[in-house]
Amino acid sequence: MADQSPTPIRCKAAVCRANGAPLVIEEIVVDPPKAYEIRIKIICTSLCHTDLTFWRVKEDFLIPPLFPRILGHEAYGVVESVGEHVEEFVVGDTVVPTFLGQCDTCSSCASAGNNMCSSVPFAVGPGMRRDGTTRFRDAQGEPLHDFLAVSSFSQYTVVDVNQVVKVHPDVPPKLACLLSCGAGTGVGAAWRLAKVEPGSSVVIFGLGAVGLAVAQGAKMCGATKIVGVDLNPEKQELGKMFGVTDFVNPSELGESSVIEVITKMTDGGADYCFECIGVAAVMIDAFRSAKQGKGKTVILGIEKDGKPICLPSIEFLFGKCVMGSLFGGIKPKTDIPILAEKCMNKELELEKLITHEVALHDINTAFDLLVQGKSLRCIIWMDKLVV
Amino acid sequence: MADQSPTPIRCKAAVCRANGAPLVIEEIVVDPPKAYEIRIKIICTSLCHTDLTFWRVKEDFLIPPLFPRILGHEAYGVVESVGEHVEEFVVGDTVVPTFLGQCDTCSSCASAGNNMCSSVPFAVGPGMRRDGTTRFRDAQGEPLHDFLAVSSFSQYTVVDVNQVVKVHPDVPPKLACLLSCGAGTGVGAAWRLAKVEPGSSVVIFGLGAVGLAVAQGAKMCGATKIVGVDLNPEKQELGKMFGVTDFVNPSELGESSVIEVITKMTDGGADYCFECIGVAAVMIDAFRSAKQGKGKTVILGIEKDGKPICLPSIEFLFGKCVMGSLFGGIKPKTDIPILAEKCMNKELELEKLITHEVALHDINTAFDLLVQGKSLRCIIWMDKLVV
Repeated sequence: MADQSPTPIRCKAAVCRANGAPLVIEEIVVDPPKAYEIRIKIICTSLCHTDLTFWRVKEDFLIPPLFPRILGHEAYGVVESVGEHVEEFVVGDTVVPTFLGQCDTCSSCASAGNNMCSSVPFAVGPGMRRDGTTRFRDAQGEPLHDFLAVSSFSQYTVVDVNQVVKVHPDVPPKLACLLSCGAGTGVGAAWRLAKVEPGSSVVIFGLGAVGLAVAQGAKMCGATKIVGVDLNPEKQELGKMFGVTDFVNPSELGESSVIEVITKMTDGGADYCFECIGVAAVMIDAFRSAKQGKGKTVILGIEKDGKPICLPSIEFLFGKCVMGSLFGGIKPKTDIPILAEKCMNKELELEKLITHEVALHDINTAFDLLVQGKSLRCIIWMDKLVV
Repeated sequence: MADQSPTPIRCKAAVCRANGAPLVIEEIVVDPPKAYEIRIKIICTSLCHTDLTFWRVKEDFLIPPLFPRILGHEAYGVVESVGEHVEEFVVGDTVVPTFLGQCDTCSSCASAGNNMCSSVPFAVGPGMRRDGTTRFRDAQGEPLHDFLAVSSFSQYTVVDVNQVVKVHPDVPPKLACLLSCGAGTGVGAAWRLAKVEPGSSVVIFGLGAVGLAVAQGAKMCGATKIVGVDLNPEKQELGKMFGVTDFVNPSELGESSVIEVITKMTDGGADYCFECIGVAAVMIDAFRSAKQGKGKTVILGIEKDGKPICLPSIEFLFGKCVMGSLFGGIKPKTDIPILAEKCMNKELELEKLITHEVALHDINTAFDLLVQGKSLRCIIWMDKLVV
């Protein structure tokens, strides 16, 4: 009987060879999955701001540049093969890879509200989280670094079993792809992290894809006032499509500050303020716009310059709170299927986040659109030549 | 029929005439209660750090000095007379005044977890919160400022009906007195604000009266590891009496930092860290000692120099949270009776916080003891000449 073990696969990937340089479509080799790993044929992926951050990363960033690397972490695919000890998945399963794992056995996974699995802990990488090695080589046999142990800008990738979530085959690929990072983060932040209460007021600083998903999450939770704050006036109409009820453009307030305007709009301060940009000064504005007594400030953006957030400690005593999380506090294997169902039932409307679609060979167009602020999510189809 | 309206009362009070100066026992006049006010005969009061803060306050503090003033806000007494529209209390009721109000009708009072009543909002003062005026005059007829609209360092005081809590006559006066601020704050912070979960790990920075009450609250909630952090080695044995299971003296760690030691003791970080001192650097240590994924940092101390707390925003993304509140998040009228019952049932043991007792004319001894760190709580009896 012939050996049916998976063998290396040759396929196309978009390789980043230097920071800020256009990705190069190369033929690469993807190794078979090791124990507790799954090789996935990626159907589609999309570009998230975190990919941009690690694409243009400079030497002085918190985490130094590392190239050549295969970026990408928001995706949908089909299980191509599984390594030893993988019992949860079979070939052909429709799945999303996720940058956060969930083992369902460690104390963190067992604890409500804690999504930082401690058995195979989160790391930006490089390297698979169990052994620190890569499954990618270029045509010359040189290793290529992975990203977040996902690396979805490749037609095939290998992911730890803890980082793979099964989704029902009826869920549209593009929608599942969105939920695997940005949209899941935004909705989760309102739903699982902040636990937005019905009738409450919510302010969202930054109406990018994550901010708009927060709006959908807040609406789903029953918030009645959802204020969007953005410097781009086009976000006013866009926001309405996602449940934003009021809009504030900080450049159009004259002598009033954002804090003053929001405090007035929310009758003394907002119940929840979400920072979805990654600017310390905006995080402070968010904190100061939150209601005394119970106002929660939720940090979702990664501070662009690594600046700390400095807050008057006395204001915490007036009942304020600052919180944050990766992935909006959701537990991927538990919550992504729930969110997918809510999307199918139209409780959540996220597909409007998809503003563009391209084929793999046009992936640099997706980067250009996001850099220029012209796209929310651009889906990249891995096998299609023309979209 | 003779007019039975309350008339002004002449009594003794400890008046603070300049910052840092010994209080002076003077004969003062206490006006009758106005509408929605209650005049209370104070049986006993105790000295809290917040009184010290406003006693030695300098010009550059957040809230400027204001004298002559009657300090004191932790107390127990009996209703002597009531103003118009007071229906909740009758003469003879045993009560505690509280610096936070609770109207039970506003949106804040109606909201779980929000103890910042918005109908008669919290203010340091001076002045009664409805009309901004004082009920105190000195022997020369000059007005004396109140403090927190409570001013319990007087044999009689006038307090807003929202700031008075009825306690069962069986509750010992000293115990009720403790619950009206410091002990209530500490227990409440663990119980109502942080909602400490059974089996969790708790670290308390600063084992003063509030910190020790946090330990009792954490124990009551089922925490299994309660680490006390204090520079005073005597706090090690003292802590044990309140449920502290482990002790860390930051001056005895050699080359290790407090953060490293606590991270090791708590298997990766504490579930809850309470800062009960009021030093920004310690608040940051607390934050960094908290567990990734779910660690809550609770700010209870008022920063001595008004310094901000500066935190790396990225650490919030790893699931950390900073929160705070006045009065440990408790709603006075709802929660003080519950806490009193828990004390009577010995679920909570707080009376050991009382290290000293003096008569009113020795009130400056209470100040000396607290300044020197020799007391936790010193009860001041308003009518006794010898204790």
